[in-house]
Amino acid sequence: MNIQTAIAELSTLLGNRLGRSKSDRDAHGQSETHFTPAPPDAVAYPETAQEVSEIMRICAAHRCPVIGWGAGTALEGHGLAIKGGISVDFRRMNKILRINAQDMDVVVQPGITRQELNEELRATGLFFPVDPGANASIGGMAATRASGTTAVRYGTMRDNVLATQVVLADGRIINTGSRARKTSAGYDLTGLMVGSEGTLGLMTEITLRLQGQPEAISSAVCAFPTISDAVNAVMITIQMGIPMARIEFVDSTTAAAFNSYANSDFPALPHLMIEFHGSERGVAEDAARFGEVIAEFNGSDFRWSSKTEDRNALWSMRHDAYYACLALRPRARAVVTDICVPISRLAEAVEETRADIAASPIEGPILGHVGDGNFHAILLADPKNKNEMAEALRLSANMADRALRLGGTVTGEHGVGIGKLDYMDAEHGEGWSVMAEIKRALDPDNIMNPGKMVRIN
Amino acid sequence: MNIQTAIAELSTLLGNRLGRSKSDRDAHGQSETHFTPAPPDAVAYPETAQEVSEIMRICAAHRCPVIGWGAGTALEGHGLAIKGGISVDFRRMNKILRINAQDMDVVVQPGITRQELNEELRATGLFFPVDPGANASIGGMAATRASGTTAVRYGTMRDNVLATQVVLADGRIINTGSRARKTSAGYDLTGLMVGSEGTLGLMTEITLRLQGQPEAISSAVCAFPTISDAVNAVMITIQMGIPMARIEFVDSTTAAAFNSYANSDFPALPHLMIEFHGSERGVAEDAARFGEVIAEFNGSDFRWSSKTEDRNALWSMRHDAYYACLALRPRARAVVTDICVPISRLAEAVEETRADIAASPIEGPILGHVGDGNFHAILLADPKNKNEMAEALRLSANMADRALRLGGTVTGEHGVGIGKLDYMDAEHGEGWSVMAEIKRALDPDNIMNPGKMVRIN
Repeated sequence: MNIQTAIAELSTLLGNRLGRSKSDRDAHGQSETHFTPAPPDAVAYPETAQEVSEIMRICAAHRCPVIGWGAGTALEGHGLAIKGGISVDFRRMNKILRINAQDMDVVVQPGITRQELNEELRATGLFFPVDPGANASIGGMAATRASGTTAVRYGTMRDNVLATQVVLADGRIINTGSRARKTSAGYDLTGLMVGSEGTLGLMTEITLRLQGQPEAISSAVCAFPTISDAVNAVMITIQMGIPMARIEFVDSTTAAAFNSYANSDFPALPHLMIEFHGSERGVAEDAARFGEVIAEFNGSDFRWSSKTEDRNALWSMRHDAYYACLALRPRARAVVTDICVPISRLAEAVEETRADIAASPIEGPILGHVGDGNFHAILLADPKNKNEMAEALRLSANMADRALRLGGTVTGEHGVGIGKLDYMDAEHGEGWSVMAEIKRALDPDNIMNPGKMVRIN
Repeated sequence: MNIQTAIAELSTLLGNRLGRSKSDRDAHGQSETHFTPAPPDAVAYPETAQEVSEIMRICAAHRCPVIGWGAGTALEGHGLAIKGGISVDFRRMNKILRINAQDMDVVVQPGITRQELNEELRATGLFFPVDPGANASIGGMAATRASGTTAVRYGTMRDNVLATQVVLADGRIINTGSRARKTSAGYDLTGLMVGSEGTLGLMTEITLRLQGQPEAISSAVCAFPTISDAVNAVMITIQMGIPMARIEFVDSTTAAAFNSYANSDFPALPHLMIEFHGSERGVAEDAARFGEVIAEFNGSDFRWSSKTEDRNALWSMRHDAYYACLALRPRARAVVTDICVPISRLAEAVEETRADIAASPIEGPILGHVGDGNFHAILLADPKNKNEMAEALRLSANMADRALRLGGTVTGEHGVGIGKLDYMDAEHGEGWSVMAEIKRALDPDNIMNPGKMVRIN
């Protein structure tokens, strides 16, 4: 491994689009959560797939690690250069290449963010539905198999990426998939790349499914006396086939965090935030049926808003939840958890987690995408306080164990990175070895985001 | 490679559940289409995953090919033992292991057929929606990434398999995925196995998503003056967001085939067959909006049926279409095609295909799942007539070229097998090499369904 030789060659290739300043390196060595910063040795800013390919060929020749970088919103330390090497920042590759309105798809470069994309799509009557809250890059969302508030209706990145162009570890450029809606033509390489966290290749183009903007949207927020009332209301709603576009749970601590961060006035109770998309009549029918479910589970304080302004306020509050929770304790960082269980086990998973946190000295608001069985505790700890950090990590490990015991997964949408690496063996057993075998086949020198997701000896 | 030694050891393991008779071998050397029969050397009938694992260990030790077998309905020769070896017939592994009604999922063994599964589910209020027409096994459907008439609403096997248990080439048993609705925990091994046609492993358990039986179902059939009227009506319906549960196209030749096979009285025109699922009111609303689209595209002879009996008659006719088409020419076999293109290119793809067939001496009714951009021509040729077979294969190759030129795929739902192998390089380029690299990593001796999907040197 000779990183400095690689950097010299990259500098010739990219000129001033190879950043070597301390500030540039530090900016690409941070994460949103509690991990120790780990800056890369240099930052490359390619403009074309061909350049990405040349970067990879140079790095492969010198066995120099390569880490993809989008908007820096990853929560499991995916972008940290823990083995040094080159961070490949896609911000200059942020174009929409083709909008195919009739086919309801779009081809984008990885650096575009989801908000930028939806701004550009607005005039077409189409939108890209996957919404993780953060204004992540589409490349990062694809790389972590992100989802968020709308997955219950529109699916995750797994369901919404039709095709990718990928630069492999040796610099080859491949196209996975096509714009056809379905295919049986061989192994699902698109599906393999989505969620691979830059450990198998770097995406340089992504083809996304789009949705028609709904004719009508209706949102509501509703308080429940207990967690299980709220969660069971969701389960029944799903079983009744009421097509929710969003169904979010926040616990009483999160509601309190909203109140102080966004100046809202929620009662100190668990809440559901819900949204329906459809025709005027369909949305009204869905809301009426959902109202019956809520009544059955003692829901109260039911506020509907079909006005755009009110809805935006509601969802921007939800999107800022992470920051609202962080603000509960200045100087704290978060150990973020992300378990997902079968919906029948969700109430018990949330309640056990709530009790575990309540018995602990640290705070941990709980919120999540309960229509998928997915929820997060934002475990707040001062990184300088070793006891607090150990406590947060203990609670996080308990949640991972709980998820597996209840038939679920340790990460529903954030990915593995370095934060969930220690649970992969428990979740997958021999399947994790198979992941390593695939990794070795496609990246024999382990230069693509090394140290993340799989362990290579 | 020593197949006979493997057979001796398998005989000790399985006793009379290792079939060696000519009739047993011949039954597993046939296909539904035009391929030359290729019987295996023996047929294994395992009853447990552990037995499948032991079969694989024995075969691996002797480098003996292993081919999975479900219901024998594959259309691209997937089950043919073209390199000899052992056919593993899953008919004794056809149990439902667990119905999780609250979570709307089910765990099954691979040998159960989709009709058997739906019979068992009837009392639960749930159903498994993927419907390729044939009463295929769930294992076979997963292995070929099957879909069919309902994919436009409920997705393909890619979307409906939550998890699998797989026996690998060396006999290891792995579990891919969990019952959680989504996950970001590592490479999507479930997605890799679905559609891998038994070339990476044999599935021994499959966890499927289920759907609630709709409150109301409404079906219709409608004639159009031209192919492009019919196809454009579909495109507009999709863009309007009208949620079709099924939308099937049949051309005038197929309509004539129905008339003689099922004693129906369709006019000699292109038709759409459509179905809506939902609430009574939702279905009525969808039907009304669809009626407006049909009128715009000169649709006529619009027959609605919400009676179960009428609907069953309609869809059983559609499901028998393949046999109805075969009956157009006794003694003919079919070269079956399966291209899928972006919906904006569908009308031109169907019309060019229609013209190509019209200019040819052989017959080829066209029908398909047009909501996905997917259609088939059933090219009828007498296998003893070399000119006819060559002509059918020429038309099939033209269709594959057309699919790729229009941005689509050579196989939307049937898979590669041996029938579409020659087009994989054109469709995937270097991506096909990557598939071979994955295959080599997981099956280094190339014993799992060798000669299918990928080429290993």
